Amino acid sequence: MDRVETLTEEVLERARKIQVILMDVDGVLTHGKIVYDSRGIEIKHFNAHDGLAFKLAKVAGIKTGIISSRESGTIRTRATELQIDYLYLGKYKKITVLQDFIEHNNIKSEYICFIGDDLPDIPVMREVGLAVAVQNATEMTKNFAHYITNKPGGEGAVREVVELVLSSKNLLESSVQKIWE
Amino acid sequence: MDRVETLTEEVLERARKIQVILMDVDGVLTHGKIVYDSRGIEIKHFNAHDGLAFKLAKVAGIKTGIISSRESGTIRTRATELQIDYLYLGKYKKITVLQDFIEHNNIKSEYICFIGDDLPDIPVMREVGLAVAVQNATEMTKNFAHYITNKPGGEGAVREVVELVLSSKNLLESSVQKIWE
Amino acid sequence: MDRVETLTEEVLERARKIQVILMDVDGVLTHGKIVYDSRGIEIKHFNAHDGLAFKLAKVAGIKTGIISSRESGTIRTRATELQIDYLYLGKYKKITVLQDFIEHNNIKSEYICFIGDDLPDIPVMREVGLAVAVQNATEMTKNFAHYITNKPGGEGAVREVVELVLSSKNLLESSVQKIWE
Amino acid sequence: MDRVETLTEEVLERARKIQVILMDVDGVLTHGKIVYDSRGIEIKHFNAHDGLAFKLAKVAGIKTGIISSRESGTIRTRATELQIDYLYLGKYKKITVLQDFIEHNNIKSEYICFIGDDLPDIPVMREVGLAVAVQNATEMTKNFAHYITNKPGGEGAVREVVELVLSSKNLLESSVQKIWE
Repeated sequence: MDRVETLTEEVLERARKIQVILMDVDGVLTHGKIVYDSRGIEIKHFNAHDGLAFKLAKVAGIKTGIISSRESGTIRTRATELQIDYLYLGKYKKITVLQDFIEHNNIKSEYICFIGDDLPDIPVMREVGLAVAVQNATEMTKNFAHYITNKPGGEGAVREVVELVLSSKNLLESSVQKIWE
Repeated sequence: MDRVETLTEEVLERARKIQVILMDVDGVLTHGKIVYDSRGIEIKHFNAHDGLAFKLAKVAGIKTGIISSRESGTIRTRATELQIDYLYLGKYKKITVLQDFIEHNNIKSEYICFIGDDLPDIPVMREVGLAVAVQNATEMTKNFAHYITNKPGGEGAVREVVELVLSSKNLLESSVQKIWE
Repeated sequence: MDRVETLTEEVLERARKIQVILMDVDGVLTHGKIVYDSRGIEIKHFNAHDGLAFKLAKVAGIKTGIISSRESGTIRTRATELQIDYLYLGKYKKITVLQDFIEHNNIKSEYICFIGDDLPDIPVMREVGLAVAVQNATEMTKNFAHYITNKPGGEGAVREVVELVLSSKNLLESSVQKIWE
Repeated sequence: MDRVETLTEEVLERARKIQVILMDVDGVLTHGKIVYDSRGIEIKHFNAHDGLAFKLAKVAGIKTGIISSRESGTIRTRATELQIDYLYLGKYKKITVLQDFIEHNNIKSEYICFIGDDLPDIPVMREVGLAVAVQNATEMTKNFAHYITNKPGGEGAVREVVELVLSSKNLLESSVQKIWE
């Protein structure tokens, strides 16, 4: 990943400590579209490259999790398929989820990465070791990010963050090998 | 919002008076896609950033409403979720809805903002205090707008208008704080 | 429509004679996506601006029609809503449909416009008075077009053609007025 | 296809030998979106121009096939409609599928083209005569490709590869004629 060369040393240093990657859903794992049909059934657009990101994280020993203010059957279906470790849905106040997570898992906030795109994500981004805003995040959200992805949410932003973290730890190549085995 | 600096004083002055933001649906709250499945069930693509726009408007005391020529179960689902104040569906003649709205609520037209994208919206845009066309509006519609959004409909255009109105009133920062509480 | 100025006199002359606008569906009234769910149910993405194009054509006295090699419930739903005059579905050999149409309606081919995007449309495009390829048409298809739209299929290409035809006949302004009445 | 002029002689030479075109699905026949509704039903977005690619391949005597790590009812529906020759779903280890395919059909790997977009495709791309990465493939995948398409997956990438192969064999024009007959 040549991109690593262009990352600031500060971002790489933050990335090297990450043990858990938590993220918002709408706008991060999707492009932010909220889709309903006329019977009220919801539809969500995820991304195949992001799907492999969760596998790469798993073989590298990085935990992953989702915090969303919305409850959603589509997220549950996709999270099960991707074997995501932590799933917090219907949580409008995300900072409370983070505080409980830190306490319950006895983990320092500097070991946590959070990926967000809008206002409700900012209180969490202020606390974690590596705060990431996706390319399509609102301007205000980007102001609170250590790193802004090149790819938009739902089009590979999560994959980009996972590869960044794995590269910073020199784990990307070995993880790819394990994917192939 | 740095953008405010680049807005004309006329637009800001119009924005400062706004108490109600009304809008079309197709092309404004969506990108203009009309989606059906083979059983005739309709699907609509809304936007998460726009969703938060309605919350920001609410905490700032700005009323919101929808006027659409089409009746749609998907709009009803989304409007309920977003707690939109006024909902006028299946109204082809939007100017009549506006006139009734003005009379019934005893409100001056200069206090109303309308966001549109196509011909049926123009008669309404001619009457209101702040007429907005989205980026993907037809050329003719843009000719009748005081302000043209940078973002397309369904990709944050409504959020842009709400932030513009709140900024003009110096209410954006306090509204964001209330979102976080 | 300022664009008319930049159209060649040949295209305008061809457009002035048009009485019927026929078109393909996939890639023209949609962007070319073929969407299925896991039960085999098909979904199609149409466009709101194109929807108004059919109303503009109707008030201007221009007939409209669809020729598609695929049978589709979604097209039937949308065609009914838009009051499209002619509907030929499941017709792989489109040139036969055109020949029957010409004979049955006793209309000269120079009065017919056809909008296409791929190989099966070319035999029809060779015969009609105004052959249009959408922006997203294959290169080979564009070679057989008198006019190539600026907008892609499913994003306003049909609206662009209807406005072009109405403008060439000086009917656009009066048709818009009728839409507003 | 003017593009052929700009292809390297090596790519053309590899293309001339191709008898079978195999491909991944997500990211290749689609843009990589994984779409679910709230009941767990999956939706896939294919492309009409790609659909015609399979017809062009068939009339030219080129076999086509799909290898996907995911089992999917949407792929089965689309594959039946397109009369795709080989269908391998739910196969995470694609290289094993390739090896079995080669042995069972007694075909040399240099006669096979494979189109991929991500890590699981690379072991297959290393073996075949013509390895193609789509425009939206991950950087690492592109490193293993003889040819990178101009069009993204789900927006005509497969059509581009089929036309490339047919052009290299001087079969494109005659195949188009057969489509029209």
